[in-house]
Amino acid sequence: MRVTNAVLPGRSEPVTIVTEGGRITAIKESPGVGAPGEEVIDAAGRTVLPGLVNAHAHIDKTLHGGPWVSAPQVETVAERVAHERRHRDTHGLPSREYVASLVEAMVVAGTTHLRTHTDVDPGVGLRGITAVAEVARRYEGVIDIQQVAFPQGGLITNPGTLPLLRDAVEAGASVIGGLDPAGFDDAPNAHLEAVFDLAASTGTGIDIHLHDGGSLGAWEMGLIARMTREYDLGGRVAVSHAFGIAHPPTQAALLERFAEAGVALVSAAVYDAPVPPLRACAEHGVLLAGGTDGINDLWGPFGDGDMLRRAMLIAYRNSSRSDDELMLALDAVTTNAARVLGIEDHGLTVGGPADLVVVDARSAAEAVARVPGRDLVIRSGRVVARDGALVGAEGGNAPPH
Amino acid sequence: MRVTNAVLPGRSEPVTIVTEGGRITAIKESPGVGAPGEEVIDAAGRTVLPGLVNAHAHIDKTLHGGPWVSAPQVETVAERVAHERRHRDTHGLPSREYVASLVEAMVVAGTTHLRTHTDVDPGVGLRGITAVAEVARRYEGVIDIQQVAFPQGGLITNPGTLPLLRDAVEAGASVIGGLDPAGFDDAPNAHLEAVFDLAASTGTGIDIHLHDGGSLGAWEMGLIARMTREYDLGGRVAVSHAFGIAHPPTQAALLERFAEAGVALVSAAVYDAPVPPLRACAEHGVLLAGGTDGINDLWGPFGDGDMLRRAMLIAYRNSSRSDDELMLALDAVTTNAARVLGIEDHGLTVGGPADLVVVDARSAAEAVARVPGRDLVIRSGRVVARDGALVGAEGGNAPPH
Ligand SMILES: [Zn+2]
Ligand SMILES: [Zn+2]
Repeated sequence: MRVTNAVLPGRSEPVTIVTEGGRITAIKESPGVGAPGEEVIDAAGRTVLPGLVNAHAHIDKTLHGGPWVSAPQVETVAERVAHERRHRDTHGLPSREYVASLVEAMVVAGTTHLRTHTDVDPGVGLRGITAVAEVARRYEGVIDIQQVAFPQGGLITNPGTLPLLRDAVEAGASVIGGLDPAGFDDAPNAHLEAVFDLAASTGTGIDIHLHDGGSLGAWEMGLIARMTREYDLGGRVAVSHAFGIAHPPTQAALLERFAEAGVALVSAAVYDAPVPPLRACAEHGVLLAGGTDGINDLWGPFGDGDMLRRAMLIAYRNSSRSDDELMLALDAVTTNAARVLGIEDHGLTVGGPADLVVVDARSAAEAVARVPGRDLVIRSGRVVARDGALVGAEGGNAPPH
Repeated sequence: MRVTNAVLPGRSEPVTIVTEGGRITAIKESPGVGAPGEEVIDAAGRTVLPGLVNAHAHIDKTLHGGPWVSAPQVETVAERVAHERRHRDTHGLPSREYVASLVEAMVVAGTTHLRTHTDVDPGVGLRGITAVAEVARRYEGVIDIQQVAFPQGGLITNPGTLPLLRDAVEAGASVIGGLDPAGFDDAPNAHLEAVFDLAASTGTGIDIHLHDGGSLGAWEMGLIARMTREYDLGGRVAVSHAFGIAHPPTQAALLERFAEAGVALVSAAVYDAPVPPLRACAEHGVLLAGGTDGINDLWGPFGDGDMLRRAMLIAYRNSSRSDDELMLALDAVTTNAARVLGIEDHGLTVGGPADLVVVDARSAAEAVARVPGRDLVIRSGRVVARDGALVGAEGGNAPPH
């Protein structure tokens, strides 16, 4: 495949991108001559972004494509968890149909890689894990879906969950989740030890939900940094939400510790909660990745799975205004998020994967600020979506409909 | 016109809306029989919203439809004002072309009424006012545009501005603006007295930008409430942004004073700044209206003029989750915003204006949460936009192209 007249992030002149075998084999100024039968796409001066990466979702919970259900107006994580426990069966959750509907929305919006936290507890067992795994297989080659075995109902306070997390790893989860070790589970040391022990013994990564804010959240993050070093899990640990990172007295010190320990931050810029600082993270060398969090589920009605729009929101909540600042938000939903998912070669470079998203913008900064539609989504050198609709491929691995 | 099978906010069964002479003449359960030649639109179970109202924009500043220009990454309002002063002429601002481009984007997104703050200062003079007035005339009957004569460069610190504000009223501005009487102009009493005196003597309303937060902003709002009563201008005064309303110690007392004095709040949920509380405003009887603030200008790169998306953001920043809470955000961009603009009969009621927006959602709450496209925009009983494009009318007052 040859994509001509493409504007790339950080380059002022349009280029031609040549792909072969699912990788980018050349990026050059002249369009050159394609091989006989080679597919040529004229980007016509539009911007080409890397595949978008969603580092934090909950697709197992979604009602996407299903009936409209009002979420409860409650204040705490514990109340939302309880509401979900009471009502998820009524709504047939987890639902393969809704999960697939949401995954399609993500693909047509340019998402090529996804990390999703799947509920695991004695009530739902591994039903979420197997539902998501089945949908993931259906969209193999189009979007890579990585599952976090997530103790949404608690770990120490919810006996029976820990062995299920181990089973979830055997069923395909590659990351161990956690949830407010102090604020929800009231046992920060025991909670984190369980998570780190399991990750160390199963060779998985760690991604901990931390809604705890202020000095409590900051203290927990310090503990996570310490344990990451002790367990030698640098580069494999992420803290999601991390509202406590906004705690001013400790922010700089914590970012230094995260950089040293190899702990990443993941933010979906949710609601009115604090958003980690793009610029300070970049300056400290802490990976900050973007996600969507839950989309249209029993927790809340919002969301559409669009990671470019989420980059805009992360930038907006960061008071980013200049093109340079907007590019940090793009990194958060592309290369940074990919590295959190364990993918080191993501991005528009020769040798990298041919995952390209063509958008009607004159620059990547404009794309982040204005969130244009996705004209073309190319995965591994193959067009998988065009103008908001999936594209099937003869003999390819397009999902059945 | 007859719009059948329409789901209205707050009603569970679809209805038929009949319009005549630009007003809604009936809302009934049976589709009934139209008059010969009457236009019939089948909403097919989709949701019909009232015309959207943008209570706070700066269309005179916009670069919409023009070249991409990086905004500066600076911290203060004063720095942004200075940057704009240095660069606005270079970019040909204010530009009728860009203003018209933005107004069209607003119309196709369902906006039927707009209040825009137009810069007035000795540098730009009344050029912004006349440019916006000219574009407003071009779109008369499609969108109503109300101008605030806005001392963006200061009032007390910028001699020569005050007489220009009076000239702006003669040139068509119907509201007097203000800007951080303390934080920007360093003369809160003198600033507010100038604004209130001018409004009282010209019979105009007042809409004051207040970025000052915390106890300073709260104190200024108390002063504005007092002066509103003293000048007997209740119902005609709004405070825009009002970041200080988030100051916890005084929030409830201030909302009470605003309700008594007849002062409204306007928020665009900008960046990371505080957003006034939807529920508390409703409970105190304080009008809270939504706006977009500046769109794609020298202050910042964001925005698309879509008030439904802005309602979503206001709801999201309010941590609204239930359908009931989402409806408060819809009020902010419809009836509440209309009342701030001095329009008392806005909304989907018999006798009200036939301003309707058809969206692909099963309920108004879903429309706020998911922000679907605008299938049809109807102004005064006439289709003015369809699927994101303007619709011309034979012999009508569609804008020229
Ligand atoms: Zn989450
Ligand atoms: Zn403004």
